[in-house]
Amino acid sequence: MSDRPITFKIVKKQPGTLGRAGVISTPHGDIETPAFITVGTKGTVKSIKPEDMKEYISNQAALANTYHLYLQPGHKIVEEAGGLHKFANWNMPTFTDSGGFQVFSLGAAFGKGVTKFASGDVPEEKQGEKTELNVYSKDLAKSHGKLCVIDEEGVTFTSHHDGSLHRFTAERSIEIQHAIGADIMFAFDECTSPTADYEYQKEAMDRTHRWAKRSILAHKQNYEALKKQGLYGVVQGGRHLDLRAESARVLSDMDFDGYGIGGSFSKDDLGDAIRVVNEILPEDKPRHLLGIGEPNDIREAVALGCDTFDCVAPTRLARTGTIYEHKEGEIIKTNLFNTKYQRDFSSVDEGCDCYVCTNYTKAYLAHLFRAQEMLGAHLASLHNLYVIVNFTKRLREEILNA
Amino acid sequence: MSDRPITFKIVKKQPGTLGRAGVISTPHGDIETPAFITVGTKGTVKSIKPEDMKEYISNQAALANTYHLYLQPGHKIVEEAGGLHKFANWNMPTFTDSGGFQVFSLGAAFGKGVTKFASGDVPEEKQGEKTELNVYSKDLAKSHGKLCVIDEEGVTFTSHHDGSLHRFTAERSIEIQHAIGADIMFAFDECTSPTADYEYQKEAMDRTHRWAKRSILAHKQNYEALKKQGLYGVVQGGRHLDLRAESARVLSDMDFDGYGIGGSFSKDDLGDAIRVVNEILPEDKPRHLLGIGEPNDIREAVALGCDTFDCVAPTRLARTGTIYEHKEGEIIKTNLFNTKYQRDFSSVDEGCDCYVCTNYTKAYLAHLFRAQEMLGAHLASLHNLYVIVNFTKRLREEILNA
Repeated sequence: MSDRPITFKIVKKQPGTLGRAGVISTPHGDIETPAFITVGTKGTVKSIKPEDMKEYISNQAALANTYHLYLQPGHKIVEEAGGLHKFANWNMPTFTDSGGFQVFSLGAAFGKGVTKFASGDVPEEKQGEKTELNVYSKDLAKSHGKLCVIDEEGVTFTSHHDGSLHRFTAERSIEIQHAIGADIMFAFDECTSPTADYEYQKEAMDRTHRWAKRSILAHKQNYEALKKQGLYGVVQGGRHLDLRAESARVLSDMDFDGYGIGGSFSKDDLGDAIRVVNEILPEDKPRHLLGIGEPNDIREAVALGCDTFDCVAPTRLARTGTIYEHKEGEIIKTNLFNTKYQRDFSSVDEGCDCYVCTNYTKAYLAHLFRAQEMLGAHLASLHNLYVIVNFTKRLREEILNA
Repeated sequence: MSDRPITFKIVKKQPGTLGRAGVISTPHGDIETPAFITVGTKGTVKSIKPEDMKEYISNQAALANTYHLYLQPGHKIVEEAGGLHKFANWNMPTFTDSGGFQVFSLGAAFGKGVTKFASGDVPEEKQGEKTELNVYSKDLAKSHGKLCVIDEEGVTFTSHHDGSLHRFTAERSIEIQHAIGADIMFAFDECTSPTADYEYQKEAMDRTHRWAKRSILAHKQNYEALKKQGLYGVVQGGRHLDLRAESARVLSDMDFDGYGIGGSFSKDDLGDAIRVVNEILPEDKPRHLLGIGEPNDIREAVALGCDTFDCVAPTRLARTGTIYEHKEGEIIKTNLFNTKYQRDFSSVDEGCDCYVCTNYTKAYLAHLFRAQEMLGAHLASLHNLYVIVNFTKRLREEILNA
């Protein structure tokens, strides 16, 4: 274990909870946990260069999306550039997700063998080509929503850019993530629809477990990558606690460097699902809660033993003119397009001490948004990320001081 | 003179040319000239916060547009915010132009009394209102291009945002610039169409001179502003050298802190027009060449005695994926949308040592532009502005070392 590129050390456990403060060590530096990881989907945290991240947000790591980088600019280009760190100038620990979530969220995962390539494959040299298959798949996409066909081996899907046909398998996801070269990768998983029935959730979970095993094998076959990159397994099971428990048990027995908790659950189910999973997962491995970034959810999940988080909400909200604001002990969302902010010369968020709140008023940001000036999205993104990153840091401090 | 807020000192003259290195002192710091002033039309250099300007561009001053800030967010809001420096967090010397160029460039300045408000006025309380007058003016705008009606007192024009009716006079331009509060203002001037005949150019120039006198009077009536802001007169006269000389002579006798050289000239006429003007303008006042930013033009104009420059080209080009590149002693324009740059892992500009060129490849920027990522425009803007700002700085060094 000790020669693994990714290691985790628990510094302190919070008495009476599952919460812990720790350190994930990666070849590109340490992540002090609990930590919020900023999302840079296409190899850029939207509008923010790495120096801004360090200086204005103090984030510790960034996560890029395998699906997006595979389609644009293409993982081969990232590889030729020397990998994600060099390509994007990200001199910090990085993650890539498995691509599973994006592939499945392209459309309702309508599943089981409905097309002639359901259990077939698209030859690698034909991937991305606009073939007759592709024309057919587009017709199919029209009648079923966007195409996403799952079989035992993997998933066939159409690009959201141009409708071209692609295929991910566990091996392919790992191959792409090796090319991208992030410090921490995720095993290819199936992210089910929340409306899927129990039977399908179980079927998908079992398949995810088989893909998890194949992901580990694929990773171990690349000796170079094995020295530099770690692999997390992804716990699934939807909102069914027995499936979550089973998923945690099965994956615990596999040789992962850490675990993602993925999939769809309602807000109400989130806490229960996390508790069941984290009570089973090995304590000495880091746990990443995928795609969750609301402050209340992070607080709850930290107390239940999650270590890292990622979410597009802080930057996505910022681009629509919405900032996080501290009000009466809560973090609320304020949309600066409201007319009253045009003459509001108070700080962007009176309860925040970040660069943006120290130097700019709501009126200035309201002006930038109304004038469609890029600086509006930039400053609001800096602030929103600062709020969530530092909210999570304070949870760490609470554990250390407990 | 010595209690004026804006002073100018010549440090060294270049032998055999009209070129000089100097220092413009303002209440917000010094500008070492020759200098390129970054343009921040609506109170933001597009995508770039002031700290970025200092750290990555080393610019010394920024220029905002009176017309744009008047319409959005409104000069009163900038004033209530404490002025442009505070509103936009611009802790550096600032300029505002007169609004003349934008007003006239809204449409061909079709001139002389063609409507019933040609020599009338829009009462201040009606400005910006959508009145019947306005409906009429929009009909007129339809037949004549966008509305811009000039009379002896000023200009009536429609907003490019919503077609609402507005009026600028010399006094109004100064009042608005006082509210904005930049260190250096420009007197209200008429910027003629290059296709206008000699007679019209002379008529417009004479009117600009009368507006110049009125601008000075309006400025001197505001004691508070007089202590903090300086006023430049704007030399006009189109491409006619006798008119340029006359304009320089007439304005030289007025009590300005410096001079803008404005208006329209073809590339071929530019040098001659500047020479004629600068041989007449008082040597001890700074000279700003309005709206010019091509490296070759800046080089020529510096040798002919111009001190400061502004132009939107570096950031506008950057937003369309075009970067300045040093090639064989020239600065050329390279569009990164060209397919060949998708796999070009060379520095953005091999001949540049800026932050962007030190840390990013053409392939990364090409990816950002194709993916419509804001960071592309941001990084390209940092680079393009660095190139022009530092090109102009080197011209200063050449004079100092001559």
